[in-house]
Order: sequence, then structure tokens, then C-alpha cells
Amino acid sequence: MRQSFELVFASSNKNKYKEAGQILRQFGIRLKFYNFSPTEIQSDLIHKIAIKKALDAYARCKKPVIVEDVGLFVKSLGGFPGPYSSYVYKTIGNRGVISLIKRNRSAQFLSVIAYCDHKKRPVAFEGITNGSISTKPKGGGWGYDPIFIPKGRNKTYGQISDKNQISHRYRALENFARWYCRRQSSGR
Amino acid sequence: MRQSFELVFASSNKNKYKEAGQILRQFGIRLKFYNFSPTEIQSDLIHKIAIKKALDAYARCKKPVIVEDVGLFVKSLGGFPGPYSSYVYKTIGNRGVISLIKRNRSAQFLSVIAYCDHKKRPVAFEGITNGSISTKPKGGGWGYDPIFIPKGRNKTYGQISDKNQISHRYRALENFARWYCRRQSSGR
Repeated sequence: MRQSFELVFASSNKNKYKEAGQILRQFGIRLKFYNFSPTEIQSDLIHKIAIKKALDAYARCKKPVIVEDVGLFVKSLGGFPGPYSSYVYKTIGNRGVISLIKRNRSAQFLSVIAYCDHKKRPVAFEGITNGSISTKPKGGGWGYDPIFIPKGRNKTYGQISDKNQISHRYRALENFARWYCRRQSSGR
Repeated sequence: MRQSFELVFASSNKNKYKEAGQILRQFGIRLKFYNFSPTEIQSDLIHKIAIKKALDAYARCKKPVIVEDVGLFVKSLGGFPGPYSSYVYKTIGNRGVISLIKRNRSAQFLSVIAYCDHKKRPVAFEGITNGSISTKPKGGGWGYDPIFIPKGRNKTYGQISDKNQISHRYRALENFARWYCRRQSSGR
């Protein structure tokens, strides 16, 4: 008689479990479902990435260091590209993102600056700029600059000269710098 | 005289460094660039995710367990959605992916099954199915089934009855099952 084994299949996806069960039955393996979601997308993923990056960067350069993680969240795309903005930019690019938007063009740019030093207790600072996605790329800049129109303007980051006074990155760095200068001045 | 501080800015992106430098200068903070790419997208990211998931799942369920991580790689989109297939499905969906493809429709589905038990030394098994993306969703199934046409067929996973005998998931599970049954039979 053929041996029969039992295993746990850990997943949040019952469809995967059903298919896997059908397939493994041929090999004499029975599956039990275990509901499990280890790495759900969370709104604070960008904070976590920045914090981890700051620790990694300090471990390598051994000097007080800041790093940034950024996400562009398009409302009508369920927050896409969000935490994966850099990967999405490198693969489908600005024209790809534009082609996906059919209705609401609202978007939010989030920057998280994380600081780490010899204390190895990284601190994160957030900057948000609300806005919308243009119907085509306009102006210079880099990354998503040509398609992000900050709220209250009718030009993209790539078309305005004062991006660095109003951007998500500016706001996060401002929050960081106020904290950092206060801390340095107080000699802590 | 205002104090001046120097900090390292760790990033792989010189544009970010330049902007951050301009912004922080206003706060009396000078930046030095440190070239740093902590979490580049790698072709083996899906393996790494599966291995980590298997360890996490074992730590929770304390029984021999398998988990899966999957990626759909569209050639003309630079591999998009790749390691982020699940997130992309939940946000822009099948119609979103289809709308991005203008030319070459070639794609590859990769499944990685990772197994872990009390030894806490997870093992990964890979299954690949080559194919293409349909011009519109067809048939039933779930996830990307209605848009993935396996090579040598003219119907999507969602339209064929033998998906579970030819799919990327089948191939990964077959590799796993052969290894697992051999190992169990040899009593290791």
C-alpha cells in the first residue's frame, strides 16, 4: 500500500490551497489549511522599509546617516504603486501609470526619512504632499516629477521651480532637520 | 554663528541626494553621498520570500508546513508585476495588466514552494510555465488565470480543464512531492 503523508499548507489564499491539495493528492500527500498572512501590505510598510534601510546603512557606513523611502499612492488604483513605486517606475514607467488611470486622478506622495546613528535606534519622519496625476508627462525633473501635480497648482513637479520648497521630500526633511538641530543644540 | 552639521545620505539615487542636500542646507546640515542599494529587486526575491514565509509559518503552526510564493513576469514590461503580482492583482487587476502591454505579450509564471519543519532549514522548489498574456480576460479560475495562456495552447488557464497538470504550481509541487516522498520513504 502506498504511504500517505499529511502536511499543513499555510496561506491566506484558499484557491491556492485547493489547487495544491488536488495536485499533491497524486503523490499521496494530504493537505490541511492553515490561514496565514505573513506579509500583508500595510500602510506603514514605507516606514518599516525606511527604518530597516537606516539600520542597514549605519551598519555599513558607521556614521550618522539618513535614508529615504518613498511611495506614490494613486487613489483610484487602490494605492498603486504605493510601496513599490520604484519598481513600477523602472518597469512600466510614467506612461504605464498614466494609462491605468481612468477616473479619479487624486494621488498622494509620501516620503519617510529615517535617521540612524551609533545608538542604533532609528527615528522616522514623514512628509506628505497631496495632488493628482497629469494626463501626460510634462516638464523635466526625474522619477514621477513629470506626472505629479501638487494640490493648489496646475503644473507638475517637473514644471515648477519651487518643488524643493513644497514637496513630500521637503516636508519629511524639514521634520527631520528641526528634530536633528534641536537635538544637536541640546547636546544629546 | 549658526551651527553646521554633516551627515551621510545613503541611497542609490543621486537625484534624491541632490534634492535632500539643497533642502537640508537651509537647516545648516551638509550631506555626503554614500552609494547604497540595500534591497534591489533580484530575480531570486520570490525564493527569498517563500523561504521566509515557510520559517514564519512553521514558527506559528509548529507542524511540517509548505507555503508558496508566486510571480507573473511580463517580458515587455521589464518583468512587471513579478514579485509584486499579488499586490498588483489587488490594485490594478487583470484589466490593468492587459492595458499596459503594447507589444510582446510573452510572460512567465513562477511558483516557489518552500517546506519547513522542526529542523528549521527550509527547502525551496521551483516551477515555471512559459506563455503569454491574452488580449482580454477569458474563462473562469481565479487570480491571473483568465489572462495567462500557457505555451502550446490557445486558451487561458481559466479556460482549460487541465491547468493543474501543467501549471507552474503543479511543477513546483511535483518537484517538492518527489523530494518529500523520497525523504519520508528513506526515513530521514
